Amino acid sequence: MRIAMIGLGKMGGNMVRRLCRGGVEVVGYNRSPEIVQQLAKEEGMIAADSVTEALGQLPSPRIVWLMLPCGDPTEQQIDALIPQLSAGDIIIDGGNSNYHDSQRRGAWLKEHGIGFMDAGTSGGVWGLANGYCLMVGAEPEVAAQLEPVLKVLAPAADRGWAHVGPVGAGHFTKMIHNGIEYGMMQAFAEGFALLKGKDEFNLDLAQVSELWRHSSVVRSWLLDLTAESLAEDQELKAVSPFVADSGEGRWTVVESIDQGVAAPVISLALQMRFASQDDEGYGNRLLAMMRNAFGGHAVKKS
Amino acid sequence: MRIAMIGLGKMGGNMVRRLCRGGVEVVGYNRSPEIVQQLAKEEGMIAADSVTEALGQLPSPRIVWLMLPCGDPTEQQIDALIPQLSAGDIIIDGGNSNYHDSQRRGAWLKEHGIGFMDAGTSGGVWGLANGYCLMVGAEPEVAAQLEPVLKVLAPAADRGWAHVGPVGAGHFTKMIHNGIEYGMMQAFAEGFALLKGKDEFNLDLAQVSELWRHSSVVRSWLLDLTAESLAEDQELKAVSPFVADSGEGRWTVVESIDQGVAAPVISLALQMRFASQDDEGYGNRLLAMMRNAFGGHAVKKS
Repeated sequence: MRIAMIGLGKMGGNMVRRLCRGGVEVVGYNRSPEIVQQLAKEEGMIAADSVTEALGQLPSPRIVWLMLPCGDPTEQQIDALIPQLSAGDIIIDGGNSNYHDSQRRGAWLKEHGIGFMDAGTSGGVWGLANGYCLMVGAEPEVAAQLEPVLKVLAPAADRGWAHVGPVGAGHFTKMIHNGIEYGMMQAFAEGFALLKGKDEFNLDLAQVSELWRHSSVVRSWLLDLTAESLAEDQELKAVSPFVADSGEGRWTVVESIDQGVAAPVISLALQMRFASQDDEGYGNRLLAMMRNAFGGHAVKKS
Repeated sequence: MRIAMIGLGKMGGNMVRRLCRGGVEVVGYNRSPEIVQQLAKEEGMIAADSVTEALGQLPSPRIVWLMLPCGDPTEQQIDALIPQLSAGDIIIDGGNSNYHDSQRRGAWLKEHGIGFMDAGTSGGVWGLANGYCLMVGAEPEVAAQLEPVLKVLAPAADRGWAHVGPVGAGHFTKMIHNGIEYGMMQAFAEGFALLKGKDEFNLDLAQVSELWRHSSVVRSWLLDLTAESLAEDQELKAVSPFVADSGEGRWTVVESIDQGVAAPVISLALQMRFASQDDEGYGNRLLAMMRNAFGGHAVKKS
């Protein structure tokens, strides 16, 4: 089995390592070349200087796995690949693309006879050691061709990966996974803020998080990571209270609106991230001004 | 080591089993006597026909662990115990009491020279096999006396239990734990509802939940239980969409208000349970009526 991997960042690079170590031959290309040479040296990956060179090293049908930022970079790469591929070749998008884009791209590639698989991938930087959780959308014959690769990337051949449905279903499932993650993270954040806020008890949050890891109802991988961080530093003074968001939280909330199915906690977890990102605080300034206007309440000067 | 256990329900009964199997002698009393005889027969628990008889079987200092419903039953039992106990004896409240009550009771018992420990206990019906996660509030010398008991109830002698702070801190920590649980559960519920709502993909929710258990960011014990349930039945037609709440979710939200610390997702998870409990739907009827009044929008007849 030999495939090409385009995009060797944090995710793609580690996936190449796992594939090489699991006996899958990988031809790798990345825009900045340092990581290409490193993976060639360290893992025996076949280095390519360009996508075209990578394709030239593949047997037919050619299998090209993309691990690129979603949006334009993925779109442009697929666009550039089409004239270089033939009927029966397969493109896999393992990035965090919007599932509507994946559905559109699947149909577009099908017109050229090219197969498409959307592989939602969870596991972050821990995936190299633990394996990746893979949610795959594709036509059955495409998914079947990729099985050997999925079994190596997954935590084990028989678990942590699944062909969940047609093209788009993989990225859809990953999107909802991330939406749930937003809600879980926010619940933990609020709980720990209340523990921290109870000065009277002077709780050791590292102790509490470690304690909860064992036999409690809230035990989870997110708690494991939290306990590890709090053990090192529970004051978090060096961490700015700014929480970024990427596309998938937003898309989950849009999906809730499209379906007309309530997802208030996931929506609010997203909104709380927006609030954390708001340096300007215009809405809060306005509220303070209104309280002053109708009630003469003092305004705290900035 | 010998202690009395008062209240042998789902939690107390299984805790007695774990204690007896772990080498702690237990004198057990329960209002309805069947379980007393059963535990005596099956686990070698020392049966008592009354609390007084249970106390008579204890060495000094006497240690009395209560596993009773919070509120009046716990309050009345402590009230009844005081004249029968002596200075140096200890009462443990292992139920889900409000931490303010525990603080008050700790001070009240201290006036009588009686020690008090609040032991927030997580683990549910799985605690017998896996051990209980125990969050303990007490004065250091009281906690030290109970260590041998905690080490048997916990998943292991060195983990899953901790003396987190003074009297009240145990139930406080357990309360926040349950608040986080509300948020996590609601996030999963919303995510699975969105997966279910996507008819187009016809997802197998048992497959997805099982898949996520391996290397995904949302893996957790709650997901393990969810996957097990969905594997048996993913339509859930036999389950009424009514979600009960017990005290601790409410108390966590009150704590947020008392501290002035935002906990919007935990609060909303609680409110969503209230909404699920609302058979009458008066607020929604009113909204439908208002839409009709100002916009002539049709009202769906009940």
